[in-house]
Amino acid sequence: MTENEILKNAFGHLGQAGNIVLPPGHDCAAVETAGGLLLIGTADQLIEGIHYEKGTAPAKIARKLLARNLSDIAASGGAGRLFALCTVALGGEEDCGKWFGQFFRALGREASRWKVSVCGGDIARNARNGNTVLALSLFGETSRKKLCRRSGARPGDILFATGEFGNSFKSGHHLDFTPRLEEAEFLSGRYTNTMIDTSDGLLLDAGRIAEASGLGIRLDTAMIPFRKGATLESALGEGEDYELLFAVREERSRALTRNWPFRTSLTPVGSFAKIAKGSIISSDGEDLLAKFAKGYDHFGGGK
Amino acid sequence: MTENEILKNAFGHLGQAGNIVLPPGHDCAAVETAGGLLLIGTADQLIEGIHYEKGTAPAKIARKLLARNLSDIAASGGAGRLFALCTVALGGEEDCGKWFGQFFRALGREASRWKVSVCGGDIARNARNGNTVLALSLFGETSRKKLCRRSGARPGDILFATGEFGNSFKSGHHLDFTPRLEEAEFLSGRYTNTMIDTSDGLLLDAGRIAEASGLGIRLDTAMIPFRKGATLESALGEGEDYELLFAVREERSRALTRNWPFRTSLTPVGSFAKIAKGSIISSDGEDLLAKFAKGYDHFGGGK
Repeated sequence: MTENEILKNAFGHLGQAGNIVLPPGHDCAAVETAGGLLLIGTADQLIEGIHYEKGTAPAKIARKLLARNLSDIAASGGAGRLFALCTVALGGEEDCGKWFGQFFRALGREASRWKVSVCGGDIARNARNGNTVLALSLFGETSRKKLCRRSGARPGDILFATGEFGNSFKSGHHLDFTPRLEEAEFLSGRYTNTMIDTSDGLLLDAGRIAEASGLGIRLDTAMIPFRKGATLESALGEGEDYELLFAVREERSRALTRNWPFRTSLTPVGSFAKIAKGSIISSDGEDLLAKFAKGYDHFGGGK
Repeated sequence: MTENEILKNAFGHLGQAGNIVLPPGHDCAAVETAGGLLLIGTADQLIEGIHYEKGTAPAKIARKLLARNLSDIAASGGAGRLFALCTVALGGEEDCGKWFGQFFRALGREASRWKVSVCGGDIARNARNGNTVLALSLFGETSRKKLCRRSGARPGDILFATGEFGNSFKSGHHLDFTPRLEEAEFLSGRYTNTMIDTSDGLLLDAGRIAEASGLGIRLDTAMIPFRKGATLESALGEGEDYELLFAVREERSRALTRNWPFRTSLTPVGSFAKIAKGSIISSDGEDLLAKFAKGYDHFGGGK
């Protein structure tokens, strides 16, 4: 059973209240408060031995933990000031005081860089022989106008990508990437409301916005920007790129390219089409999901 | 180094923004949004082998995970509709589909009982040989009038407790307690704004509101209601009772007792006094913290 399937089943058990604007299954949840504000929230975890190697410096772990969650906030269109709650079950024979000192110093530094207030949480020693497991949740205010979903692409829309793809693990990119919050702030509501971040691999994540939009994607693999050392296979399927994929109306795409104010690269990598829902086809008609997608499924399933 | 000391050091590294109304070190964080709403948020974890025994039914784990966090919300005065984000790193050889089915069914049931919308999160398999670690965060709106802190008690205030104390682990109370949300909703803003929940033991937690208020407490140990099978020692120091301790002005305490509408017991167990800050003294002048407090410190430190 894949994570997607488990989650689909699981969320079936959870009653959906009327004030949930973005339900489970998106990068962030969005809810409306009684006071009429739109809040977005997300929670993600890091597991020693899965998301980072044993022995990774606490500062790098802190950075990735926050950035991973910020990438989800970016994919939902961004938010104003964010609040974070952090939990840590510390494993191994680490010196608690030293470990937490380094961890929180780095978390504080990264948090102020991104205007995140770390306002609470819980720390504990894991059980004997347990590994370190961390979770962080973020919540903040956004606007309906800026809120991005996975759905909403139309036939002919251009699929754009920020940054580069592939070779994330070996290059260390997965530990020190920059979440695309500024880019999302620029894009959301102005050029797109259909966006996702690529944590599970370009193909799997592109497939998700295609599926949610009821369309397929024609992907121009020759256009995909590679990270140093990347192969086409790793660029399409390895994951942990934490770049943004988003749909832009064809008539707006030239203005976007012209007005793009960032050093981060911006590349049109394909277009949405009325082909099999959720499919991704190469320029010469090959089914890319079938050929390449291994993605990153935490339950070993793949799509 | 105790959890308190680690957290005090850690939070020194985190820049405090002006819009944090309740900073780290309370049961909940409270923050003010740009839109002027007061949000409270809390995050807590459950660790297999520490907070529950291996083999505990997923439904019981779900229940405790939510209730533990709701108890923190109650201690801060409660909130309107709450939103939850849940992360799970599933260990062992569990059948993922079955485990998560049972877990989320129970989580959904408990969540709707308490008007909590579970709106997102992340699930993953833990690394090989890893134990199960769960975290849940809750956030929602509250009012300044109802917000409860640990500080604010005055000399002569009566210390009240809900429910019973001691023998929480053996009796299974720690897995199936009822968070005191309704009681908190009734109390906060009307009878008290100084409150804590007793997760770490009556003495340690009473000591915390005494310390935050710059006072000590004269505790009438003969008044403390015991859970079945409890001793004075376990009632004072074992923890995981998840009851409320709160300060009420002496002149309001009779009205509170008269108007209390719940079946949950309500007991005056002591009073605040200008004695050593954070101290807890018995009727015959004994230092109870020195004698009994072992509390529940996740880093093995004690107070």
